[in-house]
Amino acid sequence: MRNIKLTISYDGSRYAGWQAQKNARAIQEVIETAIAKITGKKSHLTGSGRTDAGVHAKAQVANFHTASLIPLPNLQMALNAELPKDIVITYIEEAPRKFDAQRSAKSKIYRYTIYNDNFVDPFLRSYTAKVFFKLDIKKMRQAASILTGRHDFKSFQTVDDKERESVRRIYYIKIAKIGKLVYIYMKADGFLYNMARTIAGTLVEAGRGKFTIENVKEILAKKDRRVCGPTMPARGLVLEKVFY
Amino acid sequence: MRNIKLTISYDGSRYAGWQAQKNARAIQEVIETAIAKITGKKSHLTGSGRTDAGVHAKAQVANFHTASLIPLPNLQMALNAELPKDIVITYIEEAPRKFDAQRSAKSKIYRYTIYNDNFVDPFLRSYTAKVFFKLDIKKMRQAASILTGRHDFKSFQTVDDKERESVRRIYYIKIAKIGKLVYIYMKADGFLYNMARTIAGTLVEAGRGKFTIENVKEILAKKDRRVCGPTMPARGLVLEKVFY
Repeated sequence: MRNIKLTISYDGSRYAGWQAQKNARAIQEVIETAIAKITGKKSHLTGSGRTDAGVHAKAQVANFHTASLIPLPNLQMALNAELPKDIVITYIEEAPRKFDAQRSAKSKIYRYTIYNDNFVDPFLRSYTAKVFFKLDIKKMRQAASILTGRHDFKSFQTVDDKERESVRRIYYIKIAKIGKLVYIYMKADGFLYNMARTIAGTLVEAGRGKFTIENVKEILAKKDRRVCGPTMPARGLVLEKVFY
Repeated sequence: MRNIKLTISYDGSRYAGWQAQKNARAIQEVIETAIAKITGKKSHLTGSGRTDAGVHAKAQVANFHTASLIPLPNLQMALNAELPKDIVITYIEEAPRKFDAQRSAKSKIYRYTIYNDNFVDPFLRSYTAKVFFKLDIKKMRQAASILTGRHDFKSFQTVDDKERESVRRIYYIKIAKIGKLVYIYMKADGFLYNMARTIAGTLVEAGRGKFTIENVKEILAKKDRRVCGPTMPARGLVLEKVFY
């Protein structure tokens, strides 16, 4: 059996997220259907992690096992011909037998994009979240420095989630403002459910002066989801890169 | 009566174009409906020119007359609240009484964007046209230099069009390649029906080696639509700027 590693770019707008859910199409399922059609056999596709409904990926990574002997460039071409235009296999390679896109993942980069104005550029409406309060990037960076490092991010995890262990290491949070766009890049060894979006929401509250640095420290210490900033909309979030 | 000048950004993907057509929604009509709702009276909206079905605008210009006394910032805010998210009024101002967005227009810039690869970035799928032949930018620029200046562009006009006078002046055609994206910026005193897209198609044929410089000269000389390059897809075209 070959172990095929895919790098996948997708616009999540139309989907229920990476993983199959009731009554809504999942990206994983759409790709599995294409693989089955081309290889003639159903394969399970393992993603590096779930992305929520409406979240995008510049470079999600996934792998599947197949007995098919189709050469890689042909397989990539055939998959892309089969897939809808909002899902593209950007890279394909043969992975070592033990490679598992989820378990082998070491760290990830997510990007959150804010449109900081009264009106959103129509071309960016599906990829940014509008914040009309003027954001102070310096204050956002100060708040980000509090969250960087190894912490228990329980306050940033959606309450329903069954996940127990909530300690994660954030390697960096970089914030850049280019025109009306504010980009938040976050690299961590893992992200809890909704963590990237609640961090973005907390930084927004800091940037508009609602949270002080002390508040952010308290939020981290309290380990209570109810105290952190709002969960920002899915459309502003992109899975940028997965490291192995 | 006040003469209100609007600068409008729109994603043309969902529309039948700027002007009202049978069985499909036009951008002009959507904005006129919003104006009527806010001012309480129907106004005719004059655009700088028509954009075709699926063509986008970064800065279309239009004007309308109204007796309404709503201050400009409030009018802009109310219009944007009323309009769908793919149409945004980016600027609003009071224009001189004689200003007419169409007749007063002196020149325009259009941009055509090509994705020069086998697979299109899913985030750019509605704003670029894929060309998988490798494009030689130098050859495209040579062909562009032939078309620059004052010429009869009859060969670049869609045949059905009733327009008689087909002499236009192209001030410049600038071509830039950034990664897989090829941008063609064209500034002219006016564009015939489909002209921006047939010029883009002709430059693509030159860039992939199908048309020589001599061919491009012949196309211009023949004044026959059938000899020029293909009409590139609408989704790659953006009205960038209108000069008055």
